[in-house]
Amino acid sequence: MSEKWVTLEKEFLQYIKQIAAYNEAIGLIYWDMRTGAPKKGIDQRAEVVGMLSSNVYDLSTSEKMAAYIAELSSPEAKAHLSAITVKALEECKKEYEMNKKIPKEEYEEFVVLQSKSESVWEEAKSKSDFSIFQPYLEKLVETTRRFVQYWGYEGNPYNRLLDLYEPGVTVEVLDRVFGQLRKDLVALAQEVQSSSSKPDTSKLFFPFSKEKQKEFSLEVLKGLGYDFEAGRLDETVHPFATGLNKGDVRITTNYNEKDFRTAIFGTIHECGHALYEQNISSDLAWTPLAGGTSMGIHESQSLFFENFVGRSFGFWKKNYELLKSYANGSLDDLSLEDFYRAINESKPSLIRIEADELTYPLHIMVRYEIEKGLINGEIAVKDLPEVWNAKYEEYIGVVPNNDAEGVLQDVHWSGGSFGYFPSYALGYMYAAQIKNSMLKELPNYDELLEEGNLQPIKDWLTENIHQYGRMKKPLEILKDVTNEELNAQYLVEYLKDKYSKVYQLV
Amino acid sequence: MSEKWVTLEKEFLQYIKQIAAYNEAIGLIYWDMRTGAPKKGIDQRAEVVGMLSSNVYDLSTSEKMAAYIAELSSPEAKAHLSAITVKALEECKKEYEMNKKIPKEEYEEFVVLQSKSESVWEEAKSKSDFSIFQPYLEKLVETTRRFVQYWGYEGNPYNRLLDLYEPGVTVEVLDRVFGQLRKDLVALAQEVQSSSSKPDTSKLFFPFSKEKQKEFSLEVLKGLGYDFEAGRLDETVHPFATGLNKGDVRITTNYNEKDFRTAIFGTIHECGHALYEQNISSDLAWTPLAGGTSMGIHESQSLFFENFVGRSFGFWKKNYELLKSYANGSLDDLSLEDFYRAINESKPSLIRIEADELTYPLHIMVRYEIEKGLINGEIAVKDLPEVWNAKYEEYIGVVPNNDAEGVLQDVHWSGGSFGYFPSYALGYMYAAQIKNSMLKELPNYDELLEEGNLQPIKDWLTENIHQYGRMKKPLEILKDVTNEELNAQYLVEYLKDKYSKVYQLV
Repeated sequence: MSEKWVTLEKEFLQYIKQIAAYNEAIGLIYWDMRTGAPKKGIDQRAEVVGMLSSNVYDLSTSEKMAAYIAELSSPEAKAHLSAITVKALEECKKEYEMNKKIPKEEYEEFVVLQSKSESVWEEAKSKSDFSIFQPYLEKLVETTRRFVQYWGYEGNPYNRLLDLYEPGVTVEVLDRVFGQLRKDLVALAQEVQSSSSKPDTSKLFFPFSKEKQKEFSLEVLKGLGYDFEAGRLDETVHPFATGLNKGDVRITTNYNEKDFRTAIFGTIHECGHALYEQNISSDLAWTPLAGGTSMGIHESQSLFFENFVGRSFGFWKKNYELLKSYANGSLDDLSLEDFYRAINESKPSLIRIEADELTYPLHIMVRYEIEKGLINGEIAVKDLPEVWNAKYEEYIGVVPNNDAEGVLQDVHWSGGSFGYFPSYALGYMYAAQIKNSMLKELPNYDELLEEGNLQPIKDWLTENIHQYGRMKKPLEILKDVTNEELNAQYLVEYLKDKYSKVYQLV
Repeated sequence: MSEKWVTLEKEFLQYIKQIAAYNEAIGLIYWDMRTGAPKKGIDQRAEVVGMLSSNVYDLSTSEKMAAYIAELSSPEAKAHLSAITVKALEECKKEYEMNKKIPKEEYEEFVVLQSKSESVWEEAKSKSDFSIFQPYLEKLVETTRRFVQYWGYEGNPYNRLLDLYEPGVTVEVLDRVFGQLRKDLVALAQEVQSSSSKPDTSKLFFPFSKEKQKEFSLEVLKGLGYDFEAGRLDETVHPFATGLNKGDVRITTNYNEKDFRTAIFGTIHECGHALYEQNISSDLAWTPLAGGTSMGIHESQSLFFENFVGRSFGFWKKNYELLKSYANGSLDDLSLEDFYRAINESKPSLIRIEADELTYPLHIMVRYEIEKGLINGEIAVKDLPEVWNAKYEEYIGVVPNNDAEGVLQDVHWSGGSFGYFPSYALGYMYAAQIKNSMLKELPNYDELLEEGNLQPIKDWLTENIHQYGRMKKPLEILKDVTNEELNAQYLVEYLKDKYSKVYQLV
C-alpha cells in the first residue's frame, strides 16, 4: 500500500523538478540580460523567456498538477510523504489556486497593462508629470482590487496582497508595529537633526577608481564568507543578488567613482542575500522550497549584513586600514572614529533608495499607508501627489518639489506590485529582533567583528534561518529564533543606541 | 484549399520555433559555463541542460514532427510553402531520420560511453598512456561503425560521417584534393625548412599585459566590423564563438602574457566565425537554417579572417603602429617587414593547434587517413600510436616522443566525433578558392586592407555566403561563388606565393 505513495511522491517530485529547471534557466537568462547581453539579441531572447515562462505556468496549472494536489493532500497520503514533499505540495497548491482563480483573459490583460504601465511610468517620471501615469495607475489599482476579490481574503483586503510577499503578516500586525516605529523614529530623527554634534562627511568623497573599489569589495566579500566557488561578482546599474541554485548565487554591485559608499554597502547588502541562498539545505534542491522564505526575511539577511555588520564600529575597526590601503592616501587624515560617524550620517531626504538607516523605515510607512488606502478604496489615485507630499512632510519633514522626486520615484506600482513595500521595513525589524537573540548565544558579537571572525555569526544564521529555505514561514522562523512575536522595540532600541552615540545625544 | 497549407505551415514554424528557443537557452548556458559559471553550481546546471536537450530531442522525434514531415513533404504541399519552410523541413527530416534509425537504448549507451571516454582520455593523456584509452576507443569505433550501418551510406562507409559535418563531401572528393595538397605542401614545407633566410621570431616574445592585449583586440575587432551591439568578447582557456541568435554572437579569446600571437590571431579567427553568424538573414530566425551551413564553410570564414586578413602584409601595414602603441616600446626595434615575416614563420611541429598555416593541413590529413581506416576496418585501434607516428614522420618530418603529444593530443575521438577533422582542412581550401573569386570583384583587396577599409570585403562575404545561413549546402555555396568544384590548387598557390616571399625562396 505504501508503495503507491512512494511512487506517486517520486513522480510528483520529478514533475516539479521540471518547473525548477525552467526557472533556473530563466534566472540565468535574466542575470545575463542585466550583466551585459548584447542589446540586439534582447528581443529574440525575450521570446525565449516567454516560452520558458509559459512552460512554468502550464506545468503549475495543469490537470496533472491538480491531480497531484488532490491525491497527495489527503491525510492518508501526507502520512507517507516526506516533510519536504508536504511543504512543496503546499507551495504548489497555493500557486495553483492563485493562478486558477483569475480568469485567463483577465490575467493576460493585466500582463499587457503591466508592461504598458511601466513604460508610461518611465515617461511620466522623466516629465515629472503624475497626470500621465494616473489613468494607468487607476487601472492597476482597480484590477488589483478585483483580483483580491477573486482570491478572497480575511479581514482587510490588503491582507491578501501582503500574503503574496510576507505570508502571515497582516494589516493588524503592521498597524501595530509601524505605529510604534513611526512615533519613536520620527522623534529620534528630530533629535538627531537638532544635535549640535553632526558627523562631517566631507572627507568621504574623493576619486576612487572602479578597479580599486572592486578589489576592496572582493576582499570584503571574502571576509564575510561569500563562497566564490558558488558565486561571482559583476557590475550593473542596479545591484542585485540572484540564486540560480545553491551552488550558483551571483551578486552585482555598482561603482560610483566619487562615492565609494554606493559599492561597498551595496556589495555587503547583496552578500547578505547571497549568504542566505548559498546556505539553504541541499535537500530542498529542485523544489519551490529552495529559496528565501519571504521578501522580508530575505531583506532581514541583507540588512543584517549591511547595517549590523557593515555599518558597525567593529567591522571598520577590522577593515578600515584595508580600505585605506586601497584609497590611495585619501583617507589618511580621517580617524577611524570620524570615519565611522561619517558613514552613519542621518539626514531627512526625499528619495527612498538614498535614505539612511534611521529614516528609511519612514519612507516605507508612507508607501504602506498609501497602498492600504488605495486597496481599501479610502484613497483615490488622483489625490496621490497631495497625499504623498503631506505624509513626507509629516513623517520626514521634507516636501518633494515635483512628482518625479515624490510619488513617481519608485517603479513598483507601475508593475502592479502592491504589498511589497512593507517587506523592506519588516526586514529591518526582523533583523534587529534576530540580532537580539543572536547576542544571547554570541555575546562576543562585537569582538567577532573586530577580529574579522564572521564564521560563528554565519553558522548561527545558517543553523537558525538559512538552511530552512521555504520550509518555515517568515513568522514561524521569527518565533522559533526569538521566542516572541514581531516586536518593533528591538529596532527602535538599536537605532536609539547607535544614533545617540553617532550624534552624541544627551 | 491553399488556406490549409498556410495554416499548416504556420503551425509547423511555430512548432520548430520551440526547438530553436530551447537551443538558444542551451547555448547561453554553455557560454556561461565556459566563461565563469561558479563551479559548485555546475552539476545542477548540467541537469537543466539535460532537460532542455531532451525537450529538443522529443520535439525533433515526436509523432507530431513525423506528421509534419509526411504532410508537408508532398509536391503539392511544397508548391504552397515558402522556400525557407521547404529547407527547414529538409533539415528537420534529416535530423528526424538520424535519430529514429538508432535504437533508443543503443543511443543512450553511446551517450554514457562518450562521457566516460572523455574522462578516461583525460587520464590517459595526463599519463601519456594510450593503452588506458584503447578499450574505450575500440568501443567508440565499433559503435560508430554500427551506427553507420543503421544510417546507411553510399560508397564508402566513412561518407556517412562526413555528411554529418560537411554534407556533399565524400571520401572520393577528399582523396582527390588531399592527395594533391599533401604532395605540394610536403614539398613546400621541405623547401621552407631548407631556406637559408628564415624569419627571426625572437622579438615577438616580450611581456605584454592582458589588459593591453585586450584593448588592442577590441580595437582590431572594431576595425574588422564585429558588431559589439550584437556580441561581446570574453576570456576562456579555449577560444570559441557562439551564435545564440543573430543579434547575440559572442566570442572569447585567451591571453598569453608572453606571446601576444595567441590572443590576437585567436580573436581574429573567432571574429571570422562571428561575422558569419551576425550576418545571416533575419528571415531565417527561429529555424534550423539560422546558423552556418557546415563546419567547413564556418571554418573558411574564420580562416579567411585569421590568415588572408590577419596574417597579411596589408593588414599589418595598417595596424602595426597601433600594435606598437600598446606594446610599451617592445616592438620599436622590429620593422614592419621583419614583423610580418616573424608572424608567418613555418615550423614542423607535433601539436595541431599550434601549427602554422603551411603545415596545418598536413596534421589534418594524418587524422583523416586514420579515421577513414578505422571506420572501414583497415586500421585497428591498437595499432594507432604506431600508425600515427609513422604518418607524422612521413608528412611533417617529426616524431612524437610519447602518446600525449601524439595520438592522444585531440579530444575529438574521445567524444565519438569521427568525420569532423576534415572540415578544418576543407575550410582552408574553401577560403583560398573563395578569395580567388573575391579578387575578381575586389581587385583592390590588398589596398582595402592597407586602408583598413574592410567594409567591401565584409559586404561581399555577406552577400555571397553569410546571408544564406543553411539555405545552401556547402558545395552549393562554393559552386555559386566560384563557378567550379572544390579545387585545392588555390590554397597551394596562395601558400607557395606567400612562403616564397617570407622565406625568400628562389
